[in-house]
Amino acid sequence: MAEETKDGPLEDMSALQDQLDELNAQITKQGSHVRQLKKDGAGDAITEAVAKLQELKVKSAELSEKLESDAPKFNRKSFDDLVLRKMFVVPSFEIHGGVKGLYDLGPPACALKAAMIDLWRKHFVLAENMLEMECTCLTPHAVLKTSGHVDRFTDLMVKDPESDECFRADKLLEDAIDNLIEENPTMSTEEKDKHLKVQIQADAFSPEELDKLLLEYNCKAPSGQNYSPSYPFNLMFKTSIGPEGTAVGYLRPETAQGLFVNFRRLLDLNANKMPFAAAQIGLGFRNEIAPRSGLLRVREFCMGEIEHFVNPKDKSHPNFSSIADKGLVLFGRDDQLGSGKTKLVSAGEAVKTGLINNETLAYFMARTQLYMEKIGMDPKRLRFRQHLKTEMAHYAADCWDLEIQSSYGWVECVGHADRACYDLDVHGKATKTPMVATTRVDPPQEIEIAKLTLDRKALGKTFKKEQRVVSSALEALAEDWSTFEPIATALEKEGKAMVDGFEVTKDMVTWAKTSKRVHEIKFTPSVIEPSFGMGRILYSLLEHSFYQREADEQRCVMRFTPQVAPSKCAVLPISSSAETNAVVDQIAAELMESDLSTRVDKSSAALGRRYARSDELGVPFAVTVDFQTLADETVTLRERDSTRQVRLPKAEVTPSIFAIIHNRLTWEKLTARYPMVTVEDGA
Amino acid sequence: MAEETKDGPLEDMSALQDQLDELNAQITKQGSHVRQLKKDGAGDAITEAVAKLQELKVKSAELSEKLESDAPKFNRKSFDDLVLRKMFVVPSFEIHGGVKGLYDLGPPACALKAAMIDLWRKHFVLAENMLEMECTCLTPHAVLKTSGHVDRFTDLMVKDPESDECFRADKLLEDAIDNLIEENPTMSTEEKDKHLKVQIQADAFSPEELDKLLLEYNCKAPSGQNYSPSYPFNLMFKTSIGPEGTAVGYLRPETAQGLFVNFRRLLDLNANKMPFAAAQIGLGFRNEIAPRSGLLRVREFCMGEIEHFVNPKDKSHPNFSSIADKGLVLFGRDDQLGSGKTKLVSAGEAVKTGLINNETLAYFMARTQLYMEKIGMDPKRLRFRQHLKTEMAHYAADCWDLEIQSSYGWVECVGHADRACYDLDVHGKATKTPMVATTRVDPPQEIEIAKLTLDRKALGKTFKKEQRVVSSALEALAEDWSTFEPIATALEKEGKAMVDGFEVTKDMVTWAKTSKRVHEIKFTPSVIEPSFGMGRILYSLLEHSFYQREADEQRCVMRFTPQVAPSKCAVLPISSSAETNAVVDQIAAELMESDLSTRVDKSSAALGRRYARSDELGVPFAVTVDFQTLADETVTLRERDSTRQVRLPKAEVTPSIFAIIHNRLTWEKLTARYPMVTVEDGA
Repeated sequence: MAEETKDGPLEDMSALQDQLDELNAQITKQGSHVRQLKKDGAGDAITEAVAKLQELKVKSAELSEKLESDAPKFNRKSFDDLVLRKMFVVPSFEIHGGVKGLYDLGPPACALKAAMIDLWRKHFVLAENMLEMECTCLTPHAVLKTSGHVDRFTDLMVKDPESDECFRADKLLEDAIDNLIEENPTMSTEEKDKHLKVQIQADAFSPEELDKLLLEYNCKAPSGQNYSPSYPFNLMFKTSIGPEGTAVGYLRPETAQGLFVNFRRLLDLNANKMPFAAAQIGLGFRNEIAPRSGLLRVREFCMGEIEHFVNPKDKSHPNFSSIADKGLVLFGRDDQLGSGKTKLVSAGEAVKTGLINNETLAYFMARTQLYMEKIGMDPKRLRFRQHLKTEMAHYAADCWDLEIQSSYGWVECVGHADRACYDLDVHGKATKTPMVATTRVDPPQEIEIAKLTLDRKALGKTFKKEQRVVSSALEALAEDWSTFEPIATALEKEGKAMVDGFEVTKDMVTWAKTSKRVHEIKFTPSVIEPSFGMGRILYSLLEHSFYQREADEQRCVMRFTPQVAPSKCAVLPISSSAETNAVVDQIAAELMESDLSTRVDKSSAALGRRYARSDELGVPFAVTVDFQTLADETVTLRERDSTRQVRLPKAEVTPSIFAIIHNRLTWEKLTARYPMVTVEDGA
Repeated sequence: MAEETKDGPLEDMSALQDQLDELNAQITKQGSHVRQLKKDGAGDAITEAVAKLQELKVKSAELSEKLESDAPKFNRKSFDDLVLRKMFVVPSFEIHGGVKGLYDLGPPACALKAAMIDLWRKHFVLAENMLEMECTCLTPHAVLKTSGHVDRFTDLMVKDPESDECFRADKLLEDAIDNLIEENPTMSTEEKDKHLKVQIQADAFSPEELDKLLLEYNCKAPSGQNYSPSYPFNLMFKTSIGPEGTAVGYLRPETAQGLFVNFRRLLDLNANKMPFAAAQIGLGFRNEIAPRSGLLRVREFCMGEIEHFVNPKDKSHPNFSSIADKGLVLFGRDDQLGSGKTKLVSAGEAVKTGLINNETLAYFMARTQLYMEKIGMDPKRLRFRQHLKTEMAHYAADCWDLEIQSSYGWVECVGHADRACYDLDVHGKATKTPMVATTRVDPPQEIEIAKLTLDRKALGKTFKKEQRVVSSALEALAEDWSTFEPIATALEKEGKAMVDGFEVTKDMVTWAKTSKRVHEIKFTPSVIEPSFGMGRILYSLLEHSFYQREADEQRCVMRFTPQVAPSKCAVLPISSSAETNAVVDQIAAELMESDLSTRVDKSSAALGRRYARSDELGVPFAVTVDFQTLADETVTLRERDSTRQVRLPKAEVTPSIFAIIHNRLTWEKLTARYPMVTVEDGA
């Protein structure tokens, strides 16, 4: 029945979710109020406010539970069948036997990805004047040695001693824990929690710890023996560049390095203004030990990375106020190891309480959330998980992964890392290139410095042609007393000190602590890096978009938003007459002229069957040219999810759909303009 | 002076070119007329028509000469400086010393490329419902062994025996010939032609021929010795996929193979309808021996490839009539080895006379020409060069390269190849997968076949588990007497025959020639492949877009069309007052909301200086907020190439530019609507 909304339960759920979100926002607000009262020492008022807060929390918990039990079940068989049959995603080189971890995007996924990337570019690059680059995948050894990837971009691997088959050690442990819990349904919550806490840290253990745990959890290789000891396996694809075969190169594991090494040119192009962001969309490669989980863990993938360069002493963001009220579902590290529950907190509140390290990091997290909502991701299945201390690099200030829930569980899809000044620092040192920006100090300030007297002779004798490097390094440190002080102490106490890997002795330099009036300060910028796994996002979107019609499980639908849908409109003739076909061709041509991708289906299948086909591809609208069209030049326009139809003049089809795609009209407003049609479409 | 057209000479040239094009079209028409007369044996009328034709040709030659001498000189120094300074293209990993043949695209080139690709997708994929895919770069050995790349994707290399430095042998020969001609200005035309004919075939010689020629032309290695003998060097980057290190993989040298191996799924998705095209945009890799010529010969590049699958017996194209009259500058193989001159011929005429092998090939050539014009390439510097017989693969039916003229000469940027059924054939055979399509025969036809009786026992004894493969191969051949006849003859005469690599003997099979009524015929489709080198096209477009203002050589301009320009509009305040800045921000925000990339320049530089900056980036329009704006809400709008300005209400800026970008308005029409402003802009 066309008048009935077929996805009623989903709409109910969305209303429930809205209530829940609102409730959670109230909780956040009330929590903030309670904190303020406590701060003010408000006495009785506190008790009252806390009681109110508790009440809100109970309501919220009830609603959450209801929502979860109402969630529709995911039908993997139907989903996988649709994805393969319609060529959203297919295994690469299938007729040659395929290669694990490599997948091709077929026509509908290709168009979907193009739309996602177009929106990404508009949402991030264009909206904030980011400097987008396209650097090469082929990367010479020196760059990845400097970045640390040659030494540390590894996973711990074990082998079956009999077959030499390779496995990822942390995944074996995770699986063993899953199995243990599944096989022991009567396990106490306490014990379960203990195992889960081991599981959540699986990729952070040392080789020795992992070996011990694999034994403890009784993990056996397929041959029945114990696994070999674990050892780090480098995940970069290695090749050699040039005909001589002597220059080692790798396929980049991330796009970021290309931006870091271009920092000086970028800063210059930006007229030396800070802060600014560079961005890149492109391929990354990772020679996974044992790829699985379809598109979620692959060996070649599309990334979108942003490197926001900022003064480490001022990580505020000029547009922060625009997203300060945006609610984010946060799973902080304390909660991961404690309650196991997420919190809905506004970006502003999260920065204020120190949960998120700084404004810029929180700003990008909120922008990521908005992007996900824009492309049609289910907001109920998004959360930000903070990295555990053990997961983070030593230099990182804070890291939050946007995780998306799919049938594979919660999967990291966008990293948000404050990498401090590590990256610029290492490349600067390795190439002896100053990777610094300048900030004006207005009014000028007095700062404490060390005034050096260098003994050029002594330096020259020891360091020869490296003399200049050492003296420059000393002078750079002397610009600020706080950075020179440790050197001064070492020289005084031990007679020598290490400066950028060189041993400087007391005879080479004398100093005086003094002060200087400065108009500008040089600094190595910090980098805040949102890093998007586009393939994972695309796969998650496919799952979030998939549903089966209530009335008929056979009828699968992809609920892509009109903005990202691979095809915008289907055009179907009700008969095969030349007259009807001519109108179909004319409407299709008009749509195409407005760059609206169109799908003509003139097959002899029943109309309902043809609607179903376009539903499977997630085409949001279908125009049908019927007998009435020939009489009065009107056609029907059907919306995919409601299956409702209106009748409108054929000349108004293209402008209407164009307006919807460009966010200037909604289907609801359109239905108010034209008469609704009552027809059975078989959906 | 704003009223004057600054690029007057260019406009004159364009008028000359129009005359020339028209003249050449008349020549084509007259030529066709002469041919018809000759065919009809028209006597005296022929002499008259030929005289007319000669007269037209003389006029055309005069005009061409004039055009060439008037062509502005290309200032490489200014061009290279601009390209690097504005970060259109920069060497990759520069601070680490760089890698030959690797370049990064900076912000303006990145936006330009995105616009080029967007137009490509609309012009080719969307407009013809091509099936776009995105396959992986990592490719297993089996696929590229099958395609022939492992054995034949090579260049001939020589070494300096002293230093082991590697060189590309054909390029050494080409350079030697260039030098010889340059050093002998008095060389006769005849002798020069002889050398040039050797040069044009440089990449088609065998190793032995090349070695002989290198000696003949006295090519010496840098050490002063003769080069080592030349040998084939495989140009693919090799790596290993998976942790075991045993699975050899390569970075794809082209995107095409991913489409070929997906042929069966694509045909199925297309409801088994033929012809159809698949397309792919993505990276290709080529380990060049000695990369040079900037972006024109690099090791990692973006390609756009189309594989049009068609019945080998019917290579007509349904939309051919839409481009039949389009004139193409063709450089056929006879002319390359003969007159050395191109011809302007319509696509229809070229197919009719057999110059271009078939409609589909000519259709794509014309579509490519249209695409180049759409993105703003200079049509005077485009030509299609046919491959010499010696350049083509043995299976290819015909190949035409679109060459673009730049300061590096005529460079191949788009290949158009009729590859017959080679690709599907080899993958089908290697994987034992039928790569066939079906065409209905209506009414049904009688065809001659061989009716086989197989001796399963004899087959089984010899071929064991391969028995089925051999019998299927025999049965497939027997479907058409013409394909079985050679087998029958061999069996009769020699008692044995080779079938797909298996030796079949007479005792295994008997046959009878008979006929069968068929309703459909199975065939292996031919592939027509337009293959775009996007990086080369981008570089050529940079050169074609670059010019210096007549009045001031220091002022460089990029004349990007509004559709591809990286930034669509600059917004400049005439003063730094808060009121002025507020208007600037408001206009910029409006432009951005309509997805029009905008460049705000609030610096204190003079207005003329700021116009010049936006000219360098090829921004087509600049809005200036001046004192009058605050009084009457109008602003000036400046067009880059003419430097003319109009004054219009600020609210009309965004809709006007949006309409121009979307081809719904032109600058000329816009200038008719609003008053022209007379100001000195310093340009």
